[in-house]
Amino acid sequence: MSAAARAGDRLTDVAGITVGHHHRLDDDVVVGGDRPGDRPGSGWATGTTVVRIAGPDPRAAVDVRGGGPGTRETDLLDPSNTVTVAHAIVLTGGSAYGLAAADGVMAELERAGVGLPMDIHGHVVPIVPAAVIFDLPVGGWDRRPDAGFGAAATRAAAQGFAIGSVGAGTGARAGGLKGGVGTASRVIDAGPAAGVTVGALIVANPVGTVIDPTTGLPWGAGVADLDRFGLRQPTPGDIGAVADIASKATVLNTTIGVVATDAALSPASLRRVAVAAHDGLARAIVPVHSPLDGDTIFAVSTGARPVEPSPLIPPGMNPEAAVLTQVAQLAAEVTRDAVVSAVVAARPVAGIPGYADVVPSALR
Amino acid sequence: MSAAARAGDRLTDVAGITVGHHHRLDDDVVVGGDRPGDRPGSGWATGTTVVRIAGPDPRAAVDVRGGGPGTRETDLLDPSNTVTVAHAIVLTGGSAYGLAAADGVMAELERAGVGLPMDIHGHVVPIVPAAVIFDLPVGGWDRRPDAGFGAAATRAAAQGFAIGSVGAGTGARAGGLKGGVGTASRVIDAGPAAGVTVGALIVANPVGTVIDPTTGLPWGAGVADLDRFGLRQPTPGDIGAVADIASKATVLNTTIGVVATDAALSPASLRRVAVAAHDGLARAIVPVHSPLDGDTIFAVSTGARPVEPSPLIPPGMNPEAAVLTQVAQLAAEVTRDAVVSAVVAARPVAGIPGYADVVPSALR
Repeated sequence: MSAAARAGDRLTDVAGITVGHHHRLDDDVVVGGDRPGDRPGSGWATGTTVVRIAGPDPRAAVDVRGGGPGTRETDLLDPSNTVTVAHAIVLTGGSAYGLAAADGVMAELERAGVGLPMDIHGHVVPIVPAAVIFDLPVGGWDRRPDAGFGAAATRAAAQGFAIGSVGAGTGARAGGLKGGVGTASRVIDAGPAAGVTVGALIVANPVGTVIDPTTGLPWGAGVADLDRFGLRQPTPGDIGAVADIASKATVLNTTIGVVATDAALSPASLRRVAVAAHDGLARAIVPVHSPLDGDTIFAVSTGARPVEPSPLIPPGMNPEAAVLTQVAQLAAEVTRDAVVSAVVAARPVAGIPGYADVVPSALR
Repeated sequence: MSAAARAGDRLTDVAGITVGHHHRLDDDVVVGGDRPGDRPGSGWATGTTVVRIAGPDPRAAVDVRGGGPGTRETDLLDPSNTVTVAHAIVLTGGSAYGLAAADGVMAELERAGVGLPMDIHGHVVPIVPAAVIFDLPVGGWDRRPDAGFGAAATRAAAQGFAIGSVGAGTGARAGGLKGGVGTASRVIDAGPAAGVTVGALIVANPVGTVIDPTTGLPWGAGVADLDRFGLRQPTPGDIGAVADIASKATVLNTTIGVVATDAALSPASLRRVAVAAHDGLARAIVPVHSPLDGDTIFAVSTGARPVEPSPLIPPGMNPEAAVLTQVAQLAAEVTRDAVVSAVVAARPVAGIPGYADVVPSALR
């Protein structure tokens, strides 16, 4: 049900970031219907993805821009507040019920001694913000991630990880197509931020569609985009097929994710990175940030690459602004690419068709 | 370890609001020391308080003003977002670990069919925002509220409830004195909001002190205040005793609570009520809203009393402003009174002295 994320194009290209999935997926999953007489969903099709953040000086921020978010430990990430770090970010299915997954992540990290040190006795409180997607109709209503999912995903965290219908993306939908987990990364090759790596991991489960029904391809995909995505112009028949499916939008969904960098930006600057990442969602998903999406993006840094104050930034302005400008722009790009990669990699679950199955002629 | 909240001066005077506590408190609790050679805490001294909100049209908002909050499901309460209701608010010990208590509240409410209806099959998602206090050094570090605490507190919810060293206030401290749960309420007797009830329930666990060391009484307490609190000027000896204790401030604390009304204010107006309630904290606690407090107040309405648009409010302004002005002012007052009632009612736990024991001459 998945592909491996490619080295050189994945969140974990940022050294110190690891990703773990845990999900349950039955063969006989049923999607719950929403018309009178339809039967409710049944079986397991949900999961949890944990992004762990290690490094010399980790820090984190968040931007919540959907109208129906389900979150935990986001207030403390306000850049004016006191805690500047997150030890792990939880992305999970299960709607608000799925917030329980963070309990297991906290327990696992505490066991490993990872967290804010709180006293002379070695006790810690791990900082584990979380966001959820609404996937409850895919499978049984009461089949939801719990603390055990979070603990298992934490233990599974590694540099190598899968994308597609895995982890928090197991029960995800993108309009009428299967959604999932996607990732991308790039290294900045010139300018004040030269050498900085920026990666994204997105759980794509939007109300809107990721595929332009008039082209059968990701919205606004140019030649360079198609090369990067491994796609090409599909046949007219395939375009018609995907246009039919794209019109079957879901009502309650959400896209959540993490953008990571090694640039030691301040939490306030990282908040700008999260803002920019939402622009990547805007380019990849139409419509997005709806009243019924819970779109939430976390921005984290390992703190590994010092950000030198730019001599070109005058006193009274954020001395990180030159580096931040480049990182933020790239954050939007890798976020967009991660959304596309999620939909391209997602395999069918419970009869929800995958893009590659509906539009096979688009794949090189 | 507690007193009963008085009818006519408690949160549940707002019809439809109920309060339940669940805590564990051992006789041999030890507070963890923070100097080299001190032993860590041991035993149980923590708990959870659940405020349930029922009524014809419940709605909710929140204002987070501490610099170190621990919260859950607060983003969705932004007045520009789509969900306008909360079915229960969780106030709990256990720092960020204690957020697990909300899992049990959600399970209990789901079982009762209470929540946002999500489909034609009768499935619901209960909206259960939560905030935590930092009480981990009081008792064993790993003795923390879990889902079972939340479920038990939900089942215990009733109009009658206890104050003092109970529920989420079991392990609370207020500077060097014992903190706890307090409550207050009043009915507006004149003006556009005449007949409206406003109540507060506060878990007082502040870094700062609630008692003025120069008077041995609550900050700024006038004659009318003292009558209301059942207090009088203490002896010079008692003032000296409390001044000594008040100087032993803790470092990591937090005050959290709920303000409720029957006035059917919009979520945006309720956000203003939560803002005003923080002014009550400012009057009762010095210092407050510190970088290490997680001070968070929820404002909820049962929606029972319609708010008529005022003919005096011109188009282009919030038509609820006249009622809101009165409710907000009273919210600050009952919040202040609830903080004082928490400290006056709190009984000693683990050697942390209660106000009534240190300043017995202040009690009438």
